[in-house]
Amino acid sequence: MPRQPIAKNKKAVVLISGGLDSAVTLYYALKRGFLCFGLIFDYGQRHKREIESAKRICGICGCNYELIRIRLPWKGSSLLDNSLAVESRFGRPRSIPNTYVPGRNIIFLSFASSFAEVVGANTIFIGAHTQDYSGYPDCRWEFLKVMEDVLALGTRAGSCGDRIKIEAPLIRMVKSQIIRLGLKLGVPFQHTWSCYRGGRYPCGRCDSCLYRAKGFQGAGLEDPLLVKQ
Amino acid sequence: MPRQPIAKNKKAVVLISGGLDSAVTLYYALKRGFLCFGLIFDYGQRHKREIESAKRICGICGCNYELIRIRLPWKGSSLLDNSLAVESRFGRPRSIPNTYVPGRNIIFLSFASSFAEVVGANTIFIGAHTQDYSGYPDCRWEFLKVMEDVLALGTRAGSCGDRIKIEAPLIRMVKSQIIRLGLKLGVPFQHTWSCYRGGRYPCGRCDSCLYRAKGFQGAGLEDPLLVKQ
Repeated sequence: MPRQPIAKNKKAVVLISGGLDSAVTLYYALKRGFLCFGLIFDYGQRHKREIESAKRICGICGCNYELIRIRLPWKGSSLLDNSLAVESRFGRPRSIPNTYVPGRNIIFLSFASSFAEVVGANTIFIGAHTQDYSGYPDCRWEFLKVMEDVLALGTRAGSCGDRIKIEAPLIRMVKSQIIRLGLKLGVPFQHTWSCYRGGRYPCGRCDSCLYRAKGFQGAGLEDPLLVKQ
Repeated sequence: MPRQPIAKNKKAVVLISGGLDSAVTLYYALKRGFLCFGLIFDYGQRHKREIESAKRICGICGCNYELIRIRLPWKGSSLLDNSLAVESRFGRPRSIPNTYVPGRNIIFLSFASSFAEVVGANTIFIGAHTQDYSGYPDCRWEFLKVMEDVLALGTRAGSCGDRIKIEAPLIRMVKSQIIRLGLKLGVPFQHTWSCYRGGRYPCGRCDSCLYRAKGFQGAGLEDPLLVKQ
């Protein structure tokens, strides 16, 4: 299992949700030799449970993290508003479900850029991917590329010629490939949390559960989170 | 004095700090006929007093607003860290003082994009300007232009062809021009707050006080905030 490196020459900020994708991304960054600084968000999500998973994953691999608390007074998503049912778009990947949180990755990456500047990290890792996704515009590669330009122009680091790079190593992978990569890296999948509903057990019906199940099935594995129960 | 319009066809989110620039920007947007939604940030700034000014200015012109509370655990700026002295770069506009808050306008605009999506606004107004400024990279026009690209690619609105525009009407103005424009628009300057130190009275020595004083001097006016005392 990769752990924090001793040589501290390469630093990275890693966005960690507590889900499977960001856990694989963190382990990938550690494997690449980055000294990682985790960034976890409590943004009022329905599935608060993922925050505990995020902390646990950081604890397991010895990654320091910061937790940011955000409250969007305007909601605008079923992940923030309990009066809305969690909509599914599974199998219709080009339409945007109501689980979309307006501006979420823009907000997350903006905090990450601030963190990166202060710790002197020149890379931000994000577990975004576009193959098996729910149609979120802020998970697309094109978006991440212009966000990199924003960091080049809108930060002190960038304006001093020290660009902050955004890496999304999973961007072109499907869920089963991500799971296989995670398996190779020793990601403790039993401690990751994907379900949007955030009950005691995964609901098995939301997009996030369905894509996770499809991924484990495609990788020919049992989901250790379900086996554990 | 411009007030909220009755015809609600054009909506805008306006970043409001409580300072002079954002107050002029808000009045300018109202004058242009936008139904404005103010966005105020409590980000742990030393000069908390500006938040009360921001609320008061919104109250005076009848602009609804939301207040977002943010805490950056890593600080990295003398505006967030009371153990650092507020540094001045007055007269050396191309160097970045320690009042620079890493990622601040990226963070503010990312929240504004989320708000804009939810209220259906297609314009975000920001009072940034580059002439009489303290060398902040996130006040530059080039930065704002790529931030617009980010909003086009990373939001539902943008990906549905409904781009969110960023307007910075003061971008090329010097402080005295901003003050003259504000005067014409009826901006209640006596309720704006600029001083970084955030004491009971403006310190008169920080960059923000110095640029404000230079602006009023250039416009041939007395600062009503000082006259009031």
